[in-house]
Amino acid sequence: MTTLIKNAVIITMDDEKPVIKGDIGITDDIIAFVGKSKDFTPERTINANGNIVMPGLVNSHTHSPMTLLRCYADDLNLQDWLFNKIMPVEDTFTQEDIYWGSLLGCWEMISGGITAFADMYFLNKKTAQAAVESGMRANICRALQCFDETTANFEKDERMREALELYNMYNGAGEGRITVEMSAHAVYTNTPEYLMFVAQTTDRLGAGMHVHISETRRENEECIKKYGMTPTALFKSCGFFNTRTNAAHCVYLSDEDINIFKEYKISIANNPTSNLKLASGIAPTGRYIREGINVALGTDGAASNNNLNMFEEIHLAALLQKGVNENPEEVTAYEALKMASTNGAKALGIEKCGILKKGCRADLIIIDTDKPHLTPYYNPVSAVAYSAQAADVDSVMVAGKFLMEKREVKTLDTEKIKHYAKKKGGAINAACGC
Amino acid sequence: MTTLIKNAVIITMDDEKPVIKGDIGITDDIIAFVGKSKDFTPERTINANGNIVMPGLVNSHTHSPMTLLRCYADDLNLQDWLFNKIMPVEDTFTQEDIYWGSLLGCWEMISGGITAFADMYFLNKKTAQAAVESGMRANICRALQCFDETTANFEKDERMREALELYNMYNGAGEGRITVEMSAHAVYTNTPEYLMFVAQTTDRLGAGMHVHISETRRENEECIKKYGMTPTALFKSCGFFNTRTNAAHCVYLSDEDINIFKEYKISIANNPTSNLKLASGIAPTGRYIREGINVALGTDGAASNNNLNMFEEIHLAALLQKGVNENPEEVTAYEALKMASTNGAKALGIEKCGILKKGCRADLIIIDTDKPHLTPYYNPVSAVAYSAQAADVDSVMVAGKFLMEKREVKTLDTEKIKHYAKKKGGAINAACGC
Repeated sequence: MTTLIKNAVIITMDDEKPVIKGDIGITDDIIAFVGKSKDFTPERTINANGNIVMPGLVNSHTHSPMTLLRCYADDLNLQDWLFNKIMPVEDTFTQEDIYWGSLLGCWEMISGGITAFADMYFLNKKTAQAAVESGMRANICRALQCFDETTANFEKDERMREALELYNMYNGAGEGRITVEMSAHAVYTNTPEYLMFVAQTTDRLGAGMHVHISETRRENEECIKKYGMTPTALFKSCGFFNTRTNAAHCVYLSDEDINIFKEYKISIANNPTSNLKLASGIAPTGRYIREGINVALGTDGAASNNNLNMFEEIHLAALLQKGVNENPEEVTAYEALKMASTNGAKALGIEKCGILKKGCRADLIIIDTDKPHLTPYYNPVSAVAYSAQAADVDSVMVAGKFLMEKREVKTLDTEKIKHYAKKKGGAINAACGC
Repeated sequence: MTTLIKNAVIITMDDEKPVIKGDIGITDDIIAFVGKSKDFTPERTINANGNIVMPGLVNSHTHSPMTLLRCYADDLNLQDWLFNKIMPVEDTFTQEDIYWGSLLGCWEMISGGITAFADMYFLNKKTAQAAVESGMRANICRALQCFDETTANFEKDERMREALELYNMYNGAGEGRITVEMSAHAVYTNTPEYLMFVAQTTDRLGAGMHVHISETRRENEECIKKYGMTPTALFKSCGFFNTRTNAAHCVYLSDEDINIFKEYKISIANNPTSNLKLASGIAPTGRYIREGINVALGTDGAASNNNLNMFEEIHLAALLQKGVNENPEEVTAYEALKMASTNGAKALGIEKCGILKKGCRADLIIIDTDKPHLTPYYNPVSAVAYSAQAADVDSVMVAGKFLMEKREVKTLDTEKIKHYAKKKGGAINAACGC
């Protein structure tokens, strides 16, 4: 199948030529050319009508079934929110809940221009199934937690069993769109002995690793008090970081931690909204970028955000660092877009992705600029970073196939998803007496 | 005319009963009841289908014609951005530019649920004309600036002449929807002698006052160096604050300044996006609210934002203070909505507005919750503050009349506005060689 998207303002995210006016040719799932080509015969032609085309957005850290807990508990700190409000309801989640919650997440993400996401949760063969059905790319991992120091035989651990089953069933599924990773949830939800076991298993599989690191001051303080080292140092001492690692949050990294991140080429998934909402703080992403660390962008779960809207994260990525550092160039509009696309693809280990260039994957979005808030615009990069909304995304393509066209999601039964989500929401409401 | 909006989730912003499920009756431009009524006979019935109805949003600080400079200059600090990039283009603006730029602003604001705005600019009889045509409420003022210390006869000052003409022509226009205020742009664009003249003229008219105060550290430092006092103290010493005053920004107020704000009941128009984007900083709005100051919310001009999207400002109002103060209750979701509605109406001096209650003005919006990112939701206040987008606004009513219904703007020729804005944008582009 050959597709031509013509008459576009293309944000390539290729540093050599970031903006090109012209066409994009796609053969099957790969970009055949960007710009102009005389000898490309398309089977299908889409007129972009001067709208913006850019790489699909990569949500580098989320927990998609938490869409079912959207607006359930707000204006609380992380510890109180997680242990007293969220976890008790999560404990009641069934496989069916995970399936429909993940589909709801996919629906929202596609609607907002996200083509790939990194998802950490549980019972998530159902998330993998949802991701396959949605047509999105997804890195999925079972968050491993172990509070029991006496567990002698980790091999029989139920969570690890689930993680390995997920790996065996879904790694490489969906024509290679699904990657299964390993995941230690965090240092405060694991014992060092168990972390060592996780690291060994990860190395044995050669799988990627997705973790939470230094999300709050309290996490750091308690880790240092208990183990005499930072979460990053503890993970390293337990044998982590030998495979591609995507570390969410990293609000509080020490100079020493930063050196470890550089040495092991660990990516950071920055979640500005969630970090603000849970009062965790503001990660110094400007510094991390200057240090040469790959900084990607994520929404975190919908319960601490309360949406999966990467446009809002892009705004914040560019705006927050300027204000906090009183430096208008601390993170530029272009750097924010890069965090949300190219850097995200790199954090997820998706090669030749997040950049619109010959030979790269045809994962892209069309942004409708026929809106008052995008009129006029002098600079498409600024327009996306500062003016656009998620609702401006007109069409979404993954691997050369449209998942959404002119705002219509093609791969999902959105009415069914809505029906289930509302039913579940009602049940949670009734149970908590809200 | 009697209108019934039935089957709504109503965020009243009335502290005694913030959320009511039911109907709203409207007689002419006034709310007849909220909740249920048996003896209300509507000429027109709107089924809200369980969607959210809340007071219209009030943009308490903007410069609407700056929509024409959207994305024109980014990632610069305020002084460089204003004096080197923005002002040179503004100097070329004609009355026609102001008219179409203001209409573009009104279109964008109506589309995003804004029913009233406070606009500071120049040549703005044309902004007043646009506001009248749009059906919105607007407080409009000519920003007065005087760099010339030798000006002997302020009465002949061209800017003041324009301000008074605006006042005489448009104060109370549009069936009372338009209020003309006076405005000293800032301490750094005026001499104390001229400020005294502005204060005297304002007191004589009994007009409201709209100013920029303490937007940047540099503004404060230079003012203290030059005059031995803060901008707030300088304004006070020049005779300001005797009439209702709306002070934009206030990122850096001293304890003494805060006392002056409390004594004179000065409102603050907080502009979180603009303050971040121009690297000015983050105003401590949580503290201001606790001190009892009326804190409203604004977008500032589109050139420093780059949109007029109050939903983004609401998100930031609630999120930023939590993160910066590491306190998840620093500004709650409800307080953020209040800043954007009730407090905004108060800052603009619009009585019985920004609250849905019998006897109050029928300025309201309907938010379509049939969206993935609003599914499910447990709390409508959180849903608006954290999940909703401007594009979710379905309908907008001002003074009992729909300015937008089911996303269709009724009062403006949007094609004509777009045509002019793009033409002007092209001309600016060509002139700057962008």
